[in-house]
Amino acid sequence: MTMSKTYKRLDKDQAAVLLVDHQTGLLSLVRDIDPDKFKNNVLALADLARYFKLPTILTTSFEDGPNGPLVPELKATFPDAPFIPRPGQINAWDNEDFVKAIKATGKKQLIIAGVVTEVCVAFPALSALAEGFDVFVVTDASGTFNEITRHSAWDRMSAAGAQLMTWFGVACELHRDWRNDVEGLGTLFANHIPDYRNLMTSYSMLALKK
Amino acid sequence: MTMSKTYKRLDKDQAAVLLVDHQTGLLSLVRDIDPDKFKNNVLALADLARYFKLPTILTTSFEDGPNGPLVPELKATFPDAPFIPRPGQINAWDNEDFVKAIKATGKKQLIIAGVVTEVCVAFPALSALAEGFDVFVVTDASGTFNEITRHSAWDRMSAAGAQLMTWFGVACELHRDWRNDVEGLGTLFANHIPDYRNLMTSYSMLALKK
Amino acid sequence: MTMSKTYKRLDKDQAAVLLVDHQTGLLSLVRDIDPDKFKNNVLALADLARYFKLPTILTTSFEDGPNGPLVPELKATFPDAPFIPRPGQINAWDNEDFVKAIKATGKKQLIIAGVVTEVCVAFPALSALAEGFDVFVVTDASGTFNEITRHSAWDRMSAAGAQLMTWFGVACELHRDWRNDVEGLGTLFANHIPDYRNLMTSYSMLALKK
Amino acid sequence: MTMSKTYKRLDKDQAAVLLVDHQTGLLSLVRDIDPDKFKNNVLALADLARYFKLPTILTTSFEDGPNGPLVPELKATFPDAPFIPRPGQINAWDNEDFVKAIKATGKKQLIIAGVVTEVCVAFPALSALAEGFDVFVVTDASGTFNEITRHSAWDRMSAAGAQLMTWFGVACELHRDWRNDVEGLGTLFANHIPDYRNLMTSYSMLALKK
Amino acid sequence: MTMSKTYKRLDKDQAAVLLVDHQTGLLSLVRDIDPDKFKNNVLALADLARYFKLPTILTTSFEDGPNGPLVPELKATFPDAPFIPRPGQINAWDNEDFVKAIKATGKKQLIIAGVVTEVCVAFPALSALAEGFDVFVVTDASGTFNEITRHSAWDRMSAAGAQLMTWFGVACELHRDWRNDVEGLGTLFANHIPDYRNLMTSYSMLALKK
Amino acid sequence: MTMSKTYKRLDKDQAAVLLVDHQTGLLSLVRDIDPDKFKNNVLALADLARYFKLPTILTTSFEDGPNGPLVPELKATFPDAPFIPRPGQINAWDNEDFVKAIKATGKKQLIIAGVVTEVCVAFPALSALAEGFDVFVVTDASGTFNEITRHSAWDRMSAAGAQLMTWFGVACELHRDWRNDVEGLGTLFANHIPDYRNLMTSYSMLALKK
Amino acid sequence: MTMSKTYKRLDKDQAAVLLVDHQTGLLSLVRDIDPDKFKNNVLALADLARYFKLPTILTTSFEDGPNGPLVPELKATFPDAPFIPRPGQINAWDNEDFVKAIKATGKKQLIIAGVVTEVCVAFPALSALAEGFDVFVVTDASGTFNEITRHSAWDRMSAAGAQLMTWFGVACELHRDWRNDVEGLGTLFANHIPDYRNLMTSYSMLALKK
Amino acid sequence: MTMSKTYKRLDKDQAAVLLVDHQTGLLSLVRDIDPDKFKNNVLALADLARYFKLPTILTTSFEDGPNGPLVPELKATFPDAPFIPRPGQINAWDNEDFVKAIKATGKKQLIIAGVVTEVCVAFPALSALAEGFDVFVVTDASGTFNEITRHSAWDRMSAAGAQLMTWFGVACELHRDWRNDVEGLGTLFANHIPDYRNLMTSYSMLALKK
Repeated sequence: MTMSKTYKRLDKDQAAVLLVDHQTGLLSLVRDIDPDKFKNNVLALADLARYFKLPTILTTSFEDGPNGPLVPELKATFPDAPFIPRPGQINAWDNEDFVKAIKATGKKQLIIAGVVTEVCVAFPALSALAEGFDVFVVTDASGTFNEITRHSAWDRMSAAGAQLMTWFGVACELHRDWRNDVEGLGTLFANHIPDYRNLMTSYSMLALKK
Repeated sequence: MTMSKTYKRLDKDQAAVLLVDHQTGLLSLVRDIDPDKFKNNVLALADLARYFKLPTILTTSFEDGPNGPLVPELKATFPDAPFIPRPGQINAWDNEDFVKAIKATGKKQLIIAGVVTEVCVAFPALSALAEGFDVFVVTDASGTFNEITRHSAWDRMSAAGAQLMTWFGVACELHRDWRNDVEGLGTLFANHIPDYRNLMTSYSMLALKK
Repeated sequence: MTMSKTYKRLDKDQAAVLLVDHQTGLLSLVRDIDPDKFKNNVLALADLARYFKLPTILTTSFEDGPNGPLVPELKATFPDAPFIPRPGQINAWDNEDFVKAIKATGKKQLIIAGVVTEVCVAFPALSALAEGFDVFVVTDASGTFNEITRHSAWDRMSAAGAQLMTWFGVACELHRDWRNDVEGLGTLFANHIPDYRNLMTSYSMLALKK
Repeated sequence: MTMSKTYKRLDKDQAAVLLVDHQTGLLSLVRDIDPDKFKNNVLALADLARYFKLPTILTTSFEDGPNGPLVPELKATFPDAPFIPRPGQINAWDNEDFVKAIKATGKKQLIIAGVVTEVCVAFPALSALAEGFDVFVVTDASGTFNEITRHSAWDRMSAAGAQLMTWFGVACELHRDWRNDVEGLGTLFANHIPDYRNLMTSYSMLALKK
Repeated sequence: MTMSKTYKRLDKDQAAVLLVDHQTGLLSLVRDIDPDKFKNNVLALADLARYFKLPTILTTSFEDGPNGPLVPELKATFPDAPFIPRPGQINAWDNEDFVKAIKATGKKQLIIAGVVTEVCVAFPALSALAEGFDVFVVTDASGTFNEITRHSAWDRMSAAGAQLMTWFGVACELHRDWRNDVEGLGTLFANHIPDYRNLMTSYSMLALKK
Repeated sequence: MTMSKTYKRLDKDQAAVLLVDHQTGLLSLVRDIDPDKFKNNVLALADLARYFKLPTILTTSFEDGPNGPLVPELKATFPDAPFIPRPGQINAWDNEDFVKAIKATGKKQLIIAGVVTEVCVAFPALSALAEGFDVFVVTDASGTFNEITRHSAWDRMSAAGAQLMTWFGVACELHRDWRNDVEGLGTLFANHIPDYRNLMTSYSMLALKK
Repeated sequence: MTMSKTYKRLDKDQAAVLLVDHQTGLLSLVRDIDPDKFKNNVLALADLARYFKLPTILTTSFEDGPNGPLVPELKATFPDAPFIPRPGQINAWDNEDFVKAIKATGKKQLIIAGVVTEVCVAFPALSALAEGFDVFVVTDASGTFNEITRHSAWDRMSAAGAQLMTWFGVACELHRDWRNDVEGLGTLFANHIPDYRNLMTSYSMLALKK
Repeated sequence: MTMSKTYKRLDKDQAAVLLVDHQTGLLSLVRDIDPDKFKNNVLALADLARYFKLPTILTTSFEDGPNGPLVPELKATFPDAPFIPRPGQINAWDNEDFVKAIKATGKKQLIIAGVVTEVCVAFPALSALAEGFDVFVVTDASGTFNEITRHSAWDRMSAAGAQLMTWFGVACELHRDWRNDVEGLGTLFANHIPDYRNLMTSYSMLALKK
């Protein structure tokens, strides 16, 4: 006999996105993913959050100091999103405004990414799991010092029940069916996956010739 | 005291194979395995499915577009297999025809491989587990963007109860005993493991000389 | 329904630190982390233990022989800490004085690091878990022969309930809120994270100019 | 509250060693560990089995064919050990003589290593776990095609309850206390860990001079 | 005595840029550089060519077939550049129009990048060297199958006298002095080096506050 | 002033191919390239030699012993090629028959590949250079123990004037112009470059639809 | 006959050190060496320059902007060294004051390190070679974006006649004979090579016991 | 026209071996090669030197201090070889006794290995080249801190005319023809190349059965 597991599946009506401490200074600490790729992953996650109209919450730690300001592209993508500059709490979940903003969305599925993985992502992820939320960590939009740090953080979060995903998987699981909007999803992919854009360009050229 | 675990063991009378989206365009996205090796792994899985006469189901997503057609070798290996071109569902399990085809086989053990791992493999794997199937993911016949994506997908599937295997392990677990057919299994290995072929060639030459 | 997990969170009033066998001879066995980085990680852990005034226990194995003496910097950092040179026990937990020293702290959260990971860390970690302690392994201040050894040890400890962390995560989880002491934590980070020190230096120079 | 775990600890009076298919032909398939290192690890495991007088069982698959004979050093190390050349069973546990030999030892802790990991190690490991044995996989004395294969096999065995260890950890956990025999264990380490031998040589030279 | 070497230094009045076969199909062959990074490098080279107003020549091989069309961004960046679709010559230098276009620029320093390195870059590089041009290969805007291929191609070109550079070095050597245009070069860097953009953003925020 | 270098360019009327010691036993020594990929590279080189009708010479060392017989596919590809089983000379160039066979071809450009790189390739390459031949080493159809060995061998050969190429570059340099035979070269590439085959399959499907 | 080469050997009476652009902002661009290790290498080079009393020249580019100030430890190590903040020249050799300062030392051997390798190191290195200086690049105290950039820069400099060294080799070649000052050199090594410090600590402990 | 190069070929009547500073303490600094493999390579080089009866010279630096004594196996292999403990010279060539011992052999080909590569190998190699010797560096029996150090040292030595080889290539080039002694060379290989030993074992078993 097999004990069947519930498939904890992302649902665009149940999900909110938390972007934690993607700040220009802190990004210099990220060395487990190349900067070109990491920038692309973070912006892809932001674009999909906007595309699926997921409530998104931004938070930062000490923007005025060496940590630096929030990456401007994120600010620009979510001009109206709740933005919680934390006065000192390291675990964003210790900040009441942050948790209030999350609870105000009414969503039970939290998609989390941040810098650095073992702190800014893992701490709120573990807190959210403890309060009964479903947690989906976007591993490729979260960065940290090195592979030891990354794998330790992944292990801790996974053992606590968080699901490890990447931005592409999140987008696909939310979209469910290409027929919901072929062009929209295709554009999202083309903007963030050079190989996919190349496929589309090759295809279009041939299609044009018919 | 040790709580003993049931050994969920592949059985050739209980198993079916699902090949999801091995399409010529999508394959250009696979960068966590070298193309020579990946091609070999996928064809090895196909060959073993045919060798063990496992019911095999093929499915694709948008063959007419940039994703490209199913790899022709797979089509040729399974000319009579159910082939479900999905009109839009990203998770193949959301396609009724696909699930019907699976259930029509009457098998409870599903061997799954596809492109890309965290979507085309993970989504139906999680769905199948939720319906009580035993799921065996063929990790080396499934490809994706990079190692972060791969390990995140493996962790998610493993946590949900899927078993991670590779084509060689699948073949061995299905065959059980070399005496069932030494030549057949030997040929399968020789065709897909250059080192094994070399061993056989060296051996044959010496044997001939006796 | 999701079964919520308790967040086993480090608390500076509940935690003690165990440093096991960081000896000058044994360090030559550590080859899964570069020596510059490993030295830095171990000293960072020591500094944070002192900074948070965590009770810290030192132990060694055969300092008089080829294993060599305790790294002098550790001795210097904790001049008054219990120091248990074990007469022969490989698992430090088999040494009564060591366990007594731990129990004397009255702490239930044990932060463990040592050389080599699969023995000097894993053995007492598994023993402590079996006695109901919460165990936090500092993976980047623990070293061993190679990646196979490391990942095997991590898997064994994680499966038994240990949480894998790194020194930076430990410091952040203990500190909770920057406002508790901005300068103290900042100094700790600047002393052990060159990138962070650079951020602070750049920032200070600009601030001075205002 | 923390659910404490039993520490499944190797005990030299409870343990037996299974060496599966370390054959000269099959060894050419091992590419996840360098041959110099792998040879050393396998012989280290054999030496420790002999040193601790653990009942050891050898088995092979088709020595007469391309798989080649058992590595002669293993044969020489265990001249009187049960040796079960399997007539065809791929999973050694499917061979009655093999299981009988194991049960004849009366041991409940099985230390397993073999080639290739996902088949010759994983299959009997899973079978043994299903029958209530405690299983300790010696990961660095087990080899396979590549890292994908290795990590898939590790995940499957770990999920089923096997403990991943390496030969050094096994030796240390069995020995418990250096005082049981300093010279014996020291010799074992010196013979298989060049860095350790160097430490001992440096130390001896200095000691001589006193 | 030391034989001094002439410093073959890029000069914006002496240099032309050759972009060879950056086509959407061929790009799927590039596996020695990650696609995000490679795309960025190619576009950075294009941007610097435009920024320094270097004569730039585009060429492709069989755009109508599987090789696919020129990457559209390149076409867009150089709407008026000579564009030579080769009817069949593999070495672009075998195409008279291509060489004529080069000679028409009157430049003796050729900056070359393309796909794949050992063919589309190396062949014209070797031909150009044989005719007395100074050749500067932009290694990070040239891609190929794997590291063996890359290093073989680099060795062959370097032995023949080509200089290996990267887009950043090319930009710096051409610009000579920041005072020629701080903002222009800064923008080029910020657009293609995420770390540099972060430095600038952090700096600007602080500067604003003064 | 730049000293222009002659472009030593492969010419199908000037070139011969030497395949040295690709034997089934020796192949188990090759660990710097994955076996799937290495097999493909060697067969690709053989196929291109046949395609361009280059005189090809095969040689082996002790086929009757542990080194094993020549890989059967090579034998089958060149049924009529001179085949020189050397009675003992390690450097094939020390074998008079081998050198005679080469000189009988009248070619001055030698394309060499073999196992292992630093011996079976490097020794005849250095001998040939000393006699005034142009030598082109096919690095990816030559294998050896590890990267240290490989790079040492490459350095030695390159310093002596050999040119390092790969099979793809050799094919392209020999072919010169696709118009000489689009289908032939395309087939060669499709048979040995999975990514290229995928491009062709995608393209064909679309072309068919027109 | 062998053409003997002059051994261009570092001589402490002939050598000067150039440290180019080790600035806190630019250091965030260095990703080919881990930050802990890189910091250690740069400080080791500084310490050896001071130890051997080599004339040392510091230069920076735009300390007031995002590049950030010179690393404070370097400033502190060389309080009286010529310090040339360049107003804009990218190649430090284009700055007259810098070249004057070098020529004022009267040394013909230049030891150069900087950030980033392909620009701040390679440009002045090539300029110095062109003027007849002997150039010794300290590769491990010079950092850049990635390995492609590094190896391209190394190849360019090596081809032009620069010698690639590391800080340890520089120290050893300058010192010539331990007897010149055992303690001084030993301290330098102990401060920057953790493994060496461990050897010394182990040794001292044993020596003390005699 | 091609300028032919002389093949500087090792000749057992012209060659001597220099083993520099393979001391037990210094070996803990070697981190660019795994210790199991490195030990094997050094002993293989020693064995081949004895096998070919090459005059061999041993030297060490400060055996009484932390550097530790010469590896005992080397001492045992060459009981009667000149052994020069240097009183302080870092470059062994600066020691008159060492150079005298070399010149006393009357050989012009020097095979050099040592620890660490960029100092103990590179310095005497460069000195020997300057005096007109032919120098063959055994790269895999020489070790150092990391890959940056290694490649810098290789580049410096290669540029000065040293030839980079590995112990296997050295043995093969010296032996010339298997017929000189099949068993002797076969034993050397079997003792140091596990894969080769396996081939021989498989072969012997089959041969026995005839």
